[in-house]
Amino acid sequence: MAGSIYGTIFQIATWGESHGKGIGVVIDGCPAGLSLCERDIQQYLDRRKPGQNKYTTKRAEGDAVEILSGIFEGRTTGTPISLIVYNEDQRSKDYGNIASCYRPGHADYTFHEKYGFRDYRGGGRSSGRETIGRVAAGAVAAKLLKEMGIQITAYTKSIGPVEVPFSEYCYSDINENVLYMPNNDYAQKASDYLNSCMKSLDSAGGIVECIVKNMPVGIGETVFEKLDANLAKAVMSIGAVKGFEIGDGFAASRSNGSENNDSFCSKGNTIRKISNHSGGVLGGMSDGSDIILRAAFKPTPSIARTQNTVNTDGADTELIIHGRHDPVIVPRAVVVVEAMTALTVADMMLLNMGARLDRIKDFYERP
Amino acid sequence: MAGSIYGTIFQIATWGESHGKGIGVVIDGCPAGLSLCERDIQQYLDRRKPGQNKYTTKRAEGDAVEILSGIFEGRTTGTPISLIVYNEDQRSKDYGNIASCYRPGHADYTFHEKYGFRDYRGGGRSSGRETIGRVAAGAVAAKLLKEMGIQITAYTKSIGPVEVPFSEYCYSDINENVLYMPNNDYAQKASDYLNSCMKSLDSAGGIVECIVKNMPVGIGETVFEKLDANLAKAVMSIGAVKGFEIGDGFAASRSNGSENNDSFCSKGNTIRKISNHSGGVLGGMSDGSDIILRAAFKPTPSIARTQNTVNTDGADTELIIHGRHDPVIVPRAVVVVEAMTALTVADMMLLNMGARLDRIKDFYERP
Amino acid sequence: MAGSIYGTIFQIATWGESHGKGIGVVIDGCPAGLSLCERDIQQYLDRRKPGQNKYTTKRAEGDAVEILSGIFEGRTTGTPISLIVYNEDQRSKDYGNIASCYRPGHADYTFHEKYGFRDYRGGGRSSGRETIGRVAAGAVAAKLLKEMGIQITAYTKSIGPVEVPFSEYCYSDINENVLYMPNNDYAQKASDYLNSCMKSLDSAGGIVECIVKNMPVGIGETVFEKLDANLAKAVMSIGAVKGFEIGDGFAASRSNGSENNDSFCSKGNTIRKISNHSGGVLGGMSDGSDIILRAAFKPTPSIARTQNTVNTDGADTELIIHGRHDPVIVPRAVVVVEAMTALTVADMMLLNMGARLDRIKDFYERP
Amino acid sequence: MAGSIYGTIFQIATWGESHGKGIGVVIDGCPAGLSLCERDIQQYLDRRKPGQNKYTTKRAEGDAVEILSGIFEGRTTGTPISLIVYNEDQRSKDYGNIASCYRPGHADYTFHEKYGFRDYRGGGRSSGRETIGRVAAGAVAAKLLKEMGIQITAYTKSIGPVEVPFSEYCYSDINENVLYMPNNDYAQKASDYLNSCMKSLDSAGGIVECIVKNMPVGIGETVFEKLDANLAKAVMSIGAVKGFEIGDGFAASRSNGSENNDSFCSKGNTIRKISNHSGGVLGGMSDGSDIILRAAFKPTPSIARTQNTVNTDGADTELIIHGRHDPVIVPRAVVVVEAMTALTVADMMLLNMGARLDRIKDFYERP
Repeated sequence: MAGSIYGTIFQIATWGESHGKGIGVVIDGCPAGLSLCERDIQQYLDRRKPGQNKYTTKRAEGDAVEILSGIFEGRTTGTPISLIVYNEDQRSKDYGNIASCYRPGHADYTFHEKYGFRDYRGGGRSSGRETIGRVAAGAVAAKLLKEMGIQITAYTKSIGPVEVPFSEYCYSDINENVLYMPNNDYAQKASDYLNSCMKSLDSAGGIVECIVKNMPVGIGETVFEKLDANLAKAVMSIGAVKGFEIGDGFAASRSNGSENNDSFCSKGNTIRKISNHSGGVLGGMSDGSDIILRAAFKPTPSIARTQNTVNTDGADTELIIHGRHDPVIVPRAVVVVEAMTALTVADMMLLNMGARLDRIKDFYERP
Repeated sequence: MAGSIYGTIFQIATWGESHGKGIGVVIDGCPAGLSLCERDIQQYLDRRKPGQNKYTTKRAEGDAVEILSGIFEGRTTGTPISLIVYNEDQRSKDYGNIASCYRPGHADYTFHEKYGFRDYRGGGRSSGRETIGRVAAGAVAAKLLKEMGIQITAYTKSIGPVEVPFSEYCYSDINENVLYMPNNDYAQKASDYLNSCMKSLDSAGGIVECIVKNMPVGIGETVFEKLDANLAKAVMSIGAVKGFEIGDGFAASRSNGSENNDSFCSKGNTIRKISNHSGGVLGGMSDGSDIILRAAFKPTPSIARTQNTVNTDGADTELIIHGRHDPVIVPRAVVVVEAMTALTVADMMLLNMGARLDRIKDFYERP
Repeated sequence: MAGSIYGTIFQIATWGESHGKGIGVVIDGCPAGLSLCERDIQQYLDRRKPGQNKYTTKRAEGDAVEILSGIFEGRTTGTPISLIVYNEDQRSKDYGNIASCYRPGHADYTFHEKYGFRDYRGGGRSSGRETIGRVAAGAVAAKLLKEMGIQITAYTKSIGPVEVPFSEYCYSDINENVLYMPNNDYAQKASDYLNSCMKSLDSAGGIVECIVKNMPVGIGETVFEKLDANLAKAVMSIGAVKGFEIGDGFAASRSNGSENNDSFCSKGNTIRKISNHSGGVLGGMSDGSDIILRAAFKPTPSIARTQNTVNTDGADTELIIHGRHDPVIVPRAVVVVEAMTALTVADMMLLNMGARLDRIKDFYERP
Repeated sequence: MAGSIYGTIFQIATWGESHGKGIGVVIDGCPAGLSLCERDIQQYLDRRKPGQNKYTTKRAEGDAVEILSGIFEGRTTGTPISLIVYNEDQRSKDYGNIASCYRPGHADYTFHEKYGFRDYRGGGRSSGRETIGRVAAGAVAAKLLKEMGIQITAYTKSIGPVEVPFSEYCYSDINENVLYMPNNDYAQKASDYLNSCMKSLDSAGGIVECIVKNMPVGIGETVFEKLDANLAKAVMSIGAVKGFEIGDGFAASRSNGSENNDSFCSKGNTIRKISNHSGGVLGGMSDGSDIILRAAFKPTPSIARTQNTVNTDGADTELIIHGRHDPVIVPRAVVVVEAMTALTVADMMLLNMGARLDRIKDFYERP
């Protein structure tokens, strides 16, 4: 409970620092019988890999994942799946005044106060590389969900002030621009904006949106373990996320009931909603519509400008952060949001199986 | 894990339906030695009680809390504190087509699908009365935090489109208007807006803001158990909440690093931030500034207009919800946000105690 | 996590002191659709009720259970089931030197040291009345298991030195003698032994055995969450239990592999074991044979003799415990062992449902 | 929750199969500031290493542990500590009829039924090599406890019928004989017994005893989370353990209250017990005396004799297990019991810190 373990049935334990030997995750509770190989995981990791374009850091890391346990004859065995990504560049280097200063917007100060000292190499455990464990495990959860027909897609809704309005979404554009935006024209505008940020030695934030399609009805528990409450925790636990919404989110607070309520209608043998202001969740349980959530990311705190701060002795000082840093982390965070969503939905799908006596009896009385 | 248990060390288990015998909560893990009586809890419950003004439901309920266990000679003993509020009006009545229809914006449909049937009396477990357990337990958590100098205050930031800008906050107004807004003039505008909603048989939403003062630095765990991630879950688990922010929240996504970063400075022997865009949390741990969070509530789904829906047989139908319902739940939800914040902060304060070997040794080596 | 919450999916939270307002339990995670009424629970509580014979305390308590929530139209709704038993006699009385002395063999001293003070009225939370919550919840778990054909039976294997050998078991005798022994003759010998204990102002212990019939194969998780490990915790958490065994238990440590191994054989279309030294668990998972476990109870610590002890000031003193106490608690503990077994097995049955992808797909693809 | 995660605050997640790439553990929640290096862990692993004498398997494994994360400048940082032991011999080999048969006394059948198939290579996850993760993590927990003056020692009390009586304990002998018995003469008798077992192609079991010295009073939570209940689960979760006792254990069931009760007495400024029948736990909390527990291990199920069993098609067959197997696992299990005890005590020490308001206030009000 120092915080690196997540989930109730589909559980994960992540570990590793930015400049240590490696980063990894242990998945405990993945059902047996899922076909799984390293390629399934690598394609998710590749989406968060740095060095893909000029807006992301240029470190030449392979981030190749290795499966250490839990697979036999190509399938999960029900026992823990241990995944590791070795850090390729662990050379000791000069961390300059990073070691003795608290960077504004970073966790340096809070880490130091909580634990008495901190691993200052590359941010240690608060580095963005921590998300490798989330993404590797999320890839497994996503594959499990696909077996049940559930598809999760995340993309960049906005970067700084450049936001793609829903009416101009073109989902096929998402993988055609380096920013993962659902409209190539807006992606171009966002690129221009990022260039201007870089010129002024500044950084930008943005919003990631995530859609879950094909959810069965009733996933999520009532009261404290609502599906949307758990999604909020999952997504807010990603570094740099400062806000979370489901469905109409904050806009719903300015709406009226007559507009915000989604009417039900019958469609063949099934029940549908004629709109989806709820974002696919009613009373904390999936309502059969797409789940739609959004995460607000703050601007990258590492900027090239000189900043005022204090050192570990508590004295005022100026700080210049050397090296190259992403002017925006949003594009690389898209797959992290997808991963945290997959982990949460998978866990709540498994938790839901004990909700009804009739289905439990069916389960145990199968021939 | 059907969802009515919350917390890791300071844990609560809530129970009860809107029209059953009562509503209650068991608190397990409250430290021994806290002075506690029913009045401490009642004053929190009174703030969520209906019937206080024309915008809240008129049921004449006392909602008097009774302590059933866990107190000896006026202090908590470290054993479970059981609290109960009996429902005063349990008379069976005609629930009309509520029993056979799925109300738009409510959890009727999802409850029915998850569990196979539902307690339709007053919404059963998805009723707003479920929050009595949260508020009663939250009152205890808040009293515990006060012993450590921590103060939590929530209020209504906006109702519908009427939002009090930060520059016009007047905290002393909060308890002077029935909407708990930090500016009486805006409260009047919000009242006017609510009157217009009621005239058009409609309802409104709003935003609750909550501030935690006097937090020690370093509360919250890293990675998945971040303080803000847990606050997000806690607040998003309240019925009708559709969005959560900490600090600048969604606005941070449109900001730049140079503006969003809070510089550190020394002030006497302590370290301070010169601004608080972070909302008091860095890397998931409290940074010593005030924690500031916001929750977006959707409009009350029960409206007096005729609505389209389906019945439990899946056939299209029209629904009229009789009886009187709040045109807005936000003012009554203020204390619920405060309660969930208190429960979460108290739990993470206790969890934090094992973070450092030197402090653990001090703890166990006391004379 | 002060310890009164148990279970992962089928969870319970118990509360209440011996001489407070009442004792109760909240069950969260009981599947929806289980037919349940107070009589189902009362028949379990009646088995632990004092005053049934001369070996148990004579307090005239009804211990009538009341269901406060979670039931609609006679069936569980999937929401928390709150159960309460009011204490009938809460009159303040003279607790004599119990308040200022630490009774040997009781939790007085440890409670005082852990919490700084203690509720000394009747033992407070460490009283045997605490088991009311376990038994009430266990009755619900047992009813759930019966729906799946699983039957749990506990009985007194020994009292003091009087032990019924397996070869002389007569299960139909269990409910024919007040000691719940599976042989009326041995029950008579045990009664004689208890009479001699009472004459010498002393008390006795004993062993409770519990059998679970009709378990499906594969219940229990590997490594730390083995079925037998969880049963051990469940049973050892009952006050006064000092030992736990499954199958041959301690005798297995003196056996040889050739004797202790249970050979498998085919029987029609199923696989059976030709013996059951394992007690129904292999590798922490149920193996299809009966689960057989035993719990060793120490002698009742409250005895009528003068005892040496210290008072709360740390000074040596003599203690005489007034009032009437059970010379043996074993017969009343039989139903408590049964309850803890039922709670554990029910929880692990629900946890097991997510073990295999093929069965999860079947579950979610049902028509 | 497939079972490989253990603990509430001091948590571990183990992984790895007998013949996979390696075995490992992630420790999350170890306090920051603990001096730790690989040697600290290796000396525990060396005690469970096979090939040390003729009674343990002869595989030439180094079992060298590597720390992958969580340490900076020689001390724990409060972030996850990832430990790995690579399997040296992963060559594919002929597993003969092990793959198609269910070995009596092993988890083959239950694994297959639970998960639909199994990793039959060397027992997969049910192999004794699984304990490497427990022991590596237990070494860290033991080092943490030593910082607080707590010392844990386990040893072999009996092998088969050869049991060292308490009156003949000679603790200094423990590390002088390969069986870790507290009396070299009994160790010789046990060796003779094991030789006779091997001659008759058979195996033996035994009892491990473990003592925890220097416990503070009040560790352990009441009701379900008693210290002894958690120790029971921890120890019973070790493969092959069939029984658990604390203090007098099963013998207490045959004793009388006048004998079993431990009287308190004052000694200087402290309170002591004049005897320790309780085994250091009263009401589930440590009472200041040594904690004494025992675990009963069944005989090694792998024996060289021909055994009757069924194959995976459900047909009767005979099985001969080739290769060399330990005739007794008890000596190698000694350190595993010590490890599980350390993990449990460390976790409950951390959990206890939130028990009293006065101490929490002291903790947070330190200068």
